[in-house]
Amino acid sequence: MIKERVKTGITGLDELIEGGLIPRSLNLLTGTAGTGKTLMSSQFIYNGLKDYDQSAVYVSFEEPIEAIKENRLSFGWDFTPYEKKEKVVFVRYDPFHVEDIYELIETNVKKLGAERVVIDSVSALGLYVRDTPEIRRMIFNVAFLLRKLSCTTLLISEILPMQESLSRFGVEEFVSDGVIVLYYNKVGSQFSRSLTVWKMRNSDHSNKIHPYKITSKGITVYSKEEAYVK
Amino acid sequence: MIKERVKTGITGLDELIEGGLIPRSLNLLTGTAGTGKTLMSSQFIYNGLKDYDQSAVYVSFEEPIEAIKENRLSFGWDFTPYEKKEKVVFVRYDPFHVEDIYELIETNVKKLGAERVVIDSVSALGLYVRDTPEIRRMIFNVAFLLRKLSCTTLLISEILPMQESLSRFGVEEFVSDGVIVLYYNKVGSQFSRSLTVWKMRNSDHSNKIHPYKITSKGITVYSKEEAYVK
Amino acid sequence: MIKERVKTGITGLDELIEGGLIPRSLNLLTGTAGTGKTLMSSQFIYNGLKDYDQSAVYVSFEEPIEAIKENRLSFGWDFTPYEKKEKVVFVRYDPFHVEDIYELIETNVKKLGAERVVIDSVSALGLYVRDTPEIRRMIFNVAFLLRKLSCTTLLISEILPMQESLSRFGVEEFVSDGVIVLYYNKVGSQFSRSLTVWKMRNSDHSNKIHPYKITSKGITVYSKEEAYVK
Amino acid sequence: MIKERVKTGITGLDELIEGGLIPRSLNLLTGTAGTGKTLMSSQFIYNGLKDYDQSAVYVSFEEPIEAIKENRLSFGWDFTPYEKKEKVVFVRYDPFHVEDIYELIETNVKKLGAERVVIDSVSALGLYVRDTPEIRRMIFNVAFLLRKLSCTTLLISEILPMQESLSRFGVEEFVSDGVIVLYYNKVGSQFSRSLTVWKMRNSDHSNKIHPYKITSKGITVYSKEEAYVK
Amino acid sequence: MIKERVKTGITGLDELIEGGLIPRSLNLLTGTAGTGKTLMSSQFIYNGLKDYDQSAVYVSFEEPIEAIKENRLSFGWDFTPYEKKEKVVFVRYDPFHVEDIYELIETNVKKLGAERVVIDSVSALGLYVRDTPEIRRMIFNVAFLLRKLSCTTLLISEILPMQESLSRFGVEEFVSDGVIVLYYNKVGSQFSRSLTVWKMRNSDHSNKIHPYKITSKGITVYSKEEAYVK
Amino acid sequence: MIKERVKTGITGLDELIEGGLIPRSLNLLTGTAGTGKTLMSSQFIYNGLKDYDQSAVYVSFEEPIEAIKENRLSFGWDFTPYEKKEKVVFVRYDPFHVEDIYELIETNVKKLGAERVVIDSVSALGLYVRDTPEIRRMIFNVAFLLRKLSCTTLLISEILPMQESLSRFGVEEFVSDGVIVLYYNKVGSQFSRSLTVWKMRNSDHSNKIHPYKITSKGITVYSKEEAYVK
Repeated sequence: MIKERVKTGITGLDELIEGGLIPRSLNLLTGTAGTGKTLMSSQFIYNGLKDYDQSAVYVSFEEPIEAIKENRLSFGWDFTPYEKKEKVVFVRYDPFHVEDIYELIETNVKKLGAERVVIDSVSALGLYVRDTPEIRRMIFNVAFLLRKLSCTTLLISEILPMQESLSRFGVEEFVSDGVIVLYYNKVGSQFSRSLTVWKMRNSDHSNKIHPYKITSKGITVYSKEEAYVK
Repeated sequence: MIKERVKTGITGLDELIEGGLIPRSLNLLTGTAGTGKTLMSSQFIYNGLKDYDQSAVYVSFEEPIEAIKENRLSFGWDFTPYEKKEKVVFVRYDPFHVEDIYELIETNVKKLGAERVVIDSVSALGLYVRDTPEIRRMIFNVAFLLRKLSCTTLLISEILPMQESLSRFGVEEFVSDGVIVLYYNKVGSQFSRSLTVWKMRNSDHSNKIHPYKITSKGITVYSKEEAYVK
Repeated sequence: MIKERVKTGITGLDELIEGGLIPRSLNLLTGTAGTGKTLMSSQFIYNGLKDYDQSAVYVSFEEPIEAIKENRLSFGWDFTPYEKKEKVVFVRYDPFHVEDIYELIETNVKKLGAERVVIDSVSALGLYVRDTPEIRRMIFNVAFLLRKLSCTTLLISEILPMQESLSRFGVEEFVSDGVIVLYYNKVGSQFSRSLTVWKMRNSDHSNKIHPYKITSKGITVYSKEEAYVK
Repeated sequence: MIKERVKTGITGLDELIEGGLIPRSLNLLTGTAGTGKTLMSSQFIYNGLKDYDQSAVYVSFEEPIEAIKENRLSFGWDFTPYEKKEKVVFVRYDPFHVEDIYELIETNVKKLGAERVVIDSVSALGLYVRDTPEIRRMIFNVAFLLRKLSCTTLLISEILPMQESLSRFGVEEFVSDGVIVLYYNKVGSQFSRSLTVWKMRNSDHSNKIHPYKITSKGITVYSKEEAYVK
Repeated sequence: MIKERVKTGITGLDELIEGGLIPRSLNLLTGTAGTGKTLMSSQFIYNGLKDYDQSAVYVSFEEPIEAIKENRLSFGWDFTPYEKKEKVVFVRYDPFHVEDIYELIETNVKKLGAERVVIDSVSALGLYVRDTPEIRRMIFNVAFLLRKLSCTTLLISEILPMQESLSRFGVEEFVSDGVIVLYYNKVGSQFSRSLTVWKMRNSDHSNKIHPYKITSKGITVYSKEEAYVK
Repeated sequence: MIKERVKTGITGLDELIEGGLIPRSLNLLTGTAGTGKTLMSSQFIYNGLKDYDQSAVYVSFEEPIEAIKENRLSFGWDFTPYEKKEKVVFVRYDPFHVEDIYELIETNVKKLGAERVVIDSVSALGLYVRDTPEIRRMIFNVAFLLRKLSCTTLLISEILPMQESLSRFGVEEFVSDGVIVLYYNKVGSQFSRSLTVWKMRNSDHSNKIHPYKITSKGITVYSKEEAYVK
């Protein structure tokens, strides 16, 4: 299997996937609202900047960029110095002009020589488009572009509660090399968080469901514990 | 995490969300008919006027405005003095001319310098529109406008019984920073009320299900008790 | 809460809702075929005529009017004297010309000074219309008109067996102040009847499920007993 | 309640409905393929001819008419003498020219002075029509015509296995005064037959589920026994 | 009931249906992929040729004709001599020119004086057609033609796994006199085969679920054993 | 049954199907993302090259061809020497020009005299096409072509999690002689892999569910063990 790995630096996660993500792979990060997909993604970017000197592009549709950066400060993650050094850029795209997204990604990745990319979210690409095949075509093209650019990418997918599928449009997992599923599940009278590595092409990976927590240091995955999901 | 908070003043609720809502956040209040979403929202507005000197705009589609104001008197909440001082305004929008809603919100918020806004309901925005992407576009634009206006907002979403999703159009939770779910659930031969804070971006929050009651003083959440939902 | 009430006079029902319906409210009476919605509604009308001197309009699409009146005689309810005194009128509308219903309602309510109205059924309004937003628009307009006319109204909604929703078009409970749900449920090898008050805006109400029976004196609700529904 | 009854003459069935069907009522006979709806209907017709001197019209879309008549001989029911005396007529309609059905029914009912009518089946009316509101309109019109003609009618509705609804188009039970449901249900490793009277307007009726059998004498309902259905 | 029977000659099956199929009846043979519908149908044809001197037409869309014939040799069924004597013909139809199927059937049935017909499959008729009413019309017409030609027919219907209905288009069981359902069901860690006679117009039939096996002699039904299906 | 077999060479798999696949048959390999369909298919191809001297064509839409070849090296499978000898070719097709696929397949199969073919995946053929009958037509034509070319083929079908069907478009199993289903199933707090041979036309086959593992030597099926699937 593949030795070289792109470490997420997220406690417990790299242990589940033989040390990190496959270089230049597309990885779907899928879960309902409130599972911490944005948090995990910015942690992946921040760790890359701080510990591995990897430039990054964060493409956001949902949360305002200032909000993301500001809020990450409370975890002790300050993106501003890296922005100044042109090591990271947060770009926001207009969901009504998604046709511009290819150029947006390509320009920024090339400019920074980015090795890590986050698309937050791939689901939003299609929310305002009427035609499912059209949406799938866009997702396919984004995936194609990101492979061409040799980035290690997290594609965020927001699914609906109780939806059993891995994605909104049924094509996201098709174009991805890896799929990580985040659960927010009711057990008795409370909800708890857990995740599983559903798929990791050309790699061994845990096939268990592991609990994770959101702490003051970001996301921590308990790679040695198991969680039960209905 | 974020220290400054917008207190709802609803007994028990603020304790679940580190003291209150995030300033300038959009919060989805979702539940079926009869869960008390309108009551909770007007309580949020009234407490803001009375205890925090925060002006407010209440945008209603469902219940006639006179009815809302009159009925709140029985809880001891008299909005009339605040209306006279131009601290609060209740506006009703015509569901067949939803295109006017942007101006309606912007004008009123600016006029009063409103810090609290209620949209009752975001679901009604789309009930008479044929085209789902069109509805989502409207919801997205309303959310965008409210962020721009720096209001702390409750977006009411009325879902159907037994529907497992968080919203009618699958986009409301996307554009929201927080999601509070109200349950009206059959246990044996009777129904009972409970709620959970599903999501609260950039904030810790309870992940339990808590019972709440409608009393002569409004809604009371039992933040130390837990409820079971099927 | 609101003191003044419009008594249904149906044994056991008024006790569940603090003495009666809210004056000038719209109340959805929802259930499958065979639950006795028409019977309960005509009992509401008859009691109003006999005991509270309240004029009434009964708008029917389903059962022929002569049949309704004739069949009620077996319960000892004779509408004819009240018809002669112009205290009650039964009107039948043509489901293929539902656009006339607004005038039909307004004219009759004004002519009689009616305080009680039954629409039997709001579901039938839309059965022959192709376009769901169009149907919802009609239901919204009927509700708007009835509020304007200050009537206390029962809107009958016929739902399909095993359908978990409260109405056919998902908007009826939106425009209603109250919702009463009638169950016809299989327990072991037989079916039994029960009801719950799902919602009653600005009012306390029982949140239990109560059995009811159809007897020679009409519907009797067992307000002190509880029933179990799957 | 109503004293005069139209006896079906089917063993056990009349006992469940206070002695028989309501005169001039529309009754939906609903069940999946293989429950014996055609058999029960022809038994209703035959008993009317033999024991109550009531003329009848049987409108068939499904089984060829010669087949129906011939096959009933094995139960000892010979329709030929009644056909010759113009007491009964079996008519077949072309599912692709359903617009002719109104005239077909009216002409034949008037010619024979028919008091009993079977429509086998109302579901077939709509199988080849594209437009659901159009189908419902047709069913409504057939029901309206049959009421006008003062016939006691069985409308056969064939539903799909595991379908929980009472009819194919969701309007058949709306226009009917009575609904009888036939079950063909798997219990362990075998299927068994049972029925329930779901609704019988202006009449008491059993609300239990009763087993029935197909014997050499036709259908026999066990009115004193109960059956369990999943 | 009907004495004359068309024996299938399949071990155990005729015993379930009073000795065989009803002459000139249409029988739906329904089940998922892999249940052995094609095998059972060719066994029906072969037995007719060998033991009852009944000519046959086998209309195939799915498996190539040469493959069917060749593969049946391993069961000891050699169709070639019968083909030479013009007692049987296997015809393949082009799913994109289904409009030719009427002539294809009629010509061949008349030429051979065929008494047994297999349509493998009626589902395939509609797979490439866009319009459900159009498909149903075709199925209805095929059924009508086969009745006119006085053939005893097996109509094969391939349904999807876990689909609870009896057919793909919801009309096949409507036009059929008999319905035989083949199950391929998971019990614990393995799948097993069983069948039930769901409906057999004008005939008694077993209402149990019976196991069957595919052996070197074809299909064997265990008419005295019972099987359990989830 | 058929003696001659095309051995997959996958440990444990051939034992389930009387020694191998039927020569010149179409076999559907169906499962969700992450079940190892691509791995199993390339193992089938590699074993054919190495042990049976059978040329092969691998048609890929999903994973880039260089990636497939490179990644297989870690299992000790080196395709390069075979490519040089023109014994194998990996071709990638453009999902937006699927109309070219017929020529692509035919040309390559003929050029190499290929006996083994993999289509990875047949699902991708239709993801970007709007019209279901159009997709089915394409799948039918691909199947027809592959039969004509006398290849033993694996058609990969990627289904959605929790989807109970065997394929995306409901026609793939129709045109296939064999169906192998790969499960990725949650048991308690972890996922495990198992497979079943659902259908194998003209062949005996195991009807059990067997566990399989992905090891450093490729896929190993435990033909003597059984697995439980919900």
